[in-house]
Amino acid sequence: MYQNQQYKLIKRPVGEVKASDFEFCEDTIAAPKEGEVIIQNLLISVDPAMRGWMNEGKSYIPPVQLGEVMRAGTGGKVVASAHPDFKEGDYVTGALGVQKYALSDGKGLQKIDTGIAPLETYMSVLGMTGMTAYFGLLDVGEPKEGEVVVVSGAAGAVGSVVGQIAKIKGCTVVGIAGGADKCRYVTEELGFDACIDYKNENIASALKKHVPKGVDVYFDNVGGETLDLLLTRLRQKARIVICGAISQYNNTTAVKGPSNYLSLLVNRARMEGFVVFDYAPRYAEAAREMAGWIQAGKLKDRHYIVEGIKTFPETLLKLFSGENTGKLLIKVAE
Amino acid sequence: MYQNQQYKLIKRPVGEVKASDFEFCEDTIAAPKEGEVIIQNLLISVDPAMRGWMNEGKSYIPPVQLGEVMRAGTGGKVVASAHPDFKEGDYVTGALGVQKYALSDGKGLQKIDTGIAPLETYMSVLGMTGMTAYFGLLDVGEPKEGEVVVVSGAAGAVGSVVGQIAKIKGCTVVGIAGGADKCRYVTEELGFDACIDYKNENIASALKKHVPKGVDVYFDNVGGETLDLLLTRLRQKARIVICGAISQYNNTTAVKGPSNYLSLLVNRARMEGFVVFDYAPRYAEAAREMAGWIQAGKLKDRHYIVEGIKTFPETLLKLFSGENTGKLLIKVAE
Repeated sequence: MYQNQQYKLIKRPVGEVKASDFEFCEDTIAAPKEGEVIIQNLLISVDPAMRGWMNEGKSYIPPVQLGEVMRAGTGGKVVASAHPDFKEGDYVTGALGVQKYALSDGKGLQKIDTGIAPLETYMSVLGMTGMTAYFGLLDVGEPKEGEVVVVSGAAGAVGSVVGQIAKIKGCTVVGIAGGADKCRYVTEELGFDACIDYKNENIASALKKHVPKGVDVYFDNVGGETLDLLLTRLRQKARIVICGAISQYNNTTAVKGPSNYLSLLVNRARMEGFVVFDYAPRYAEAAREMAGWIQAGKLKDRHYIVEGIKTFPETLLKLFSGENTGKLLIKVAE
Repeated sequence: MYQNQQYKLIKRPVGEVKASDFEFCEDTIAAPKEGEVIIQNLLISVDPAMRGWMNEGKSYIPPVQLGEVMRAGTGGKVVASAHPDFKEGDYVTGALGVQKYALSDGKGLQKIDTGIAPLETYMSVLGMTGMTAYFGLLDVGEPKEGEVVVVSGAAGAVGSVVGQIAKIKGCTVVGIAGGADKCRYVTEELGFDACIDYKNENIASALKKHVPKGVDVYFDNVGGETLDLLLTRLRQKARIVICGAISQYNNTTAVKGPSNYLSLLVNRARMEGFVVFDYAPRYAEAAREMAGWIQAGKLKDRHYIVEGIKTFPETLLKLFSGENTGKLLIKVAE
């Protein structure tokens, strides 16, 4: 018998997420039946995409239903198994939700080797975060050596990986992040060529300074005014990768559309979205390449770890206030 | 001595173009000097792009300078030549501006054969209009047989050609145009599968009816609300071709950006602009193919011809009120 704790979604948020949009529940899970496995979640991934999953309506995956455990990426350990592919002690990643324990039929679980990299790395660079950065930048953005890449949310989980991969590919890389500490992290620790502090600098003038000849690839995590300003700095044949728009997720009015989109015409440029799940058949290939970069010291990841499942509602808000640097994770158990 | 009449741009319009933004001038042109040629313009092309050329600031070509003859595509006849490549009586197309006669060094002039097609066809399907439709649809939109193509400005010069080419390529084609007459023209004469009358129908419901499974290619000539509605109807991997945004050209406030652009993410779709001049090396190839379609009766063009150069300022406004069906031309002389 496992004493479970979980957060269920009980209200669709209007604007900013409130603690009252979730219900904290306790329950028990008994022994697994044939073909089932019980996982103890050790780490829960906290991602901007969660905000979208809480909204009603058609998207790239169905919304979390009211009354369901809040969807989340997880990393954990098998504590009981009646499934031929898993045995007690196996480490796995999956999307088992905001809860301490989960009963699973094994679908969507990946066994991982914590001898190669720690669990938190499988939750960041070697997980969805890293896959998003890798395929979004390389497949959609198509940066070429010597080109100029700008990435917003540069100190965040995805942005920090995007910029490092762009450096590996021989690009000039400029980040946009909020605050001097984040900017210092991005340039000094991650090796970006420059970082614009949007909280203390005028982005438009800073772009003129740091990318005087314009931008070839803009990897957009934030949307809003930043996207609109970048549109005025495109080089011919530029590519804008639409990965997210965190500045707009809590809007109670319409999303701010990019007024300067006709710059796409003038500059023969494109703006393109993607969903990382489409690249599932190539995850292994990407993970192998990124593991190599990690071992070679070319790719670093940082984790911003908050302790305790009960912190979940307030931890989620940190993404929107920009409190975290690197991948935001909740540690549920050691 | 040729008695010239011309319209010069003397003010940058704010919002809608006014007659007072132009100055009507009379002048004379003497005999051509060595390497020069004098052309009598017979037809002047009136295009939405002109509105952009009147604005100050960086774009895909420099703006028309104040005091300069208003830029325009033209079709005319050589009346005097001291240039080895041109002789009296040759028909040529070029960009000789809103004037009766032009002195030219021959650069940018194309000799045409009016035995193959009449001059107005060289000013529409076989000219910039046709090239814009051809390369915008085929190179940027990349429609595949069986896909759904939607085009706005469907009864206009570019839109009408886009839809016909999409039909030739085996697509289902839905136009958007203003008024029952235009919609009838588009479906009955040009063979589109359907046409939405945006002046009398709700575009959103009409799209649900005519493209229930969504849109693979949207060729956008209008921008604004129409673009935003189309973004809600994209199929996965859809392509939006940004050709123009006539609904926004006379704005005195910011362009309306597409609020629904995050649909590009959800649908792994792209929005891409282009400038027809980039395809100059392939114009001849496109013209040959389109001439073949014209001869086979698969590609029709209609001209909306207004008589007299003095009508220019008011004729230009017809583009924005949507008065013309097909290619808008001013006949300067027989």
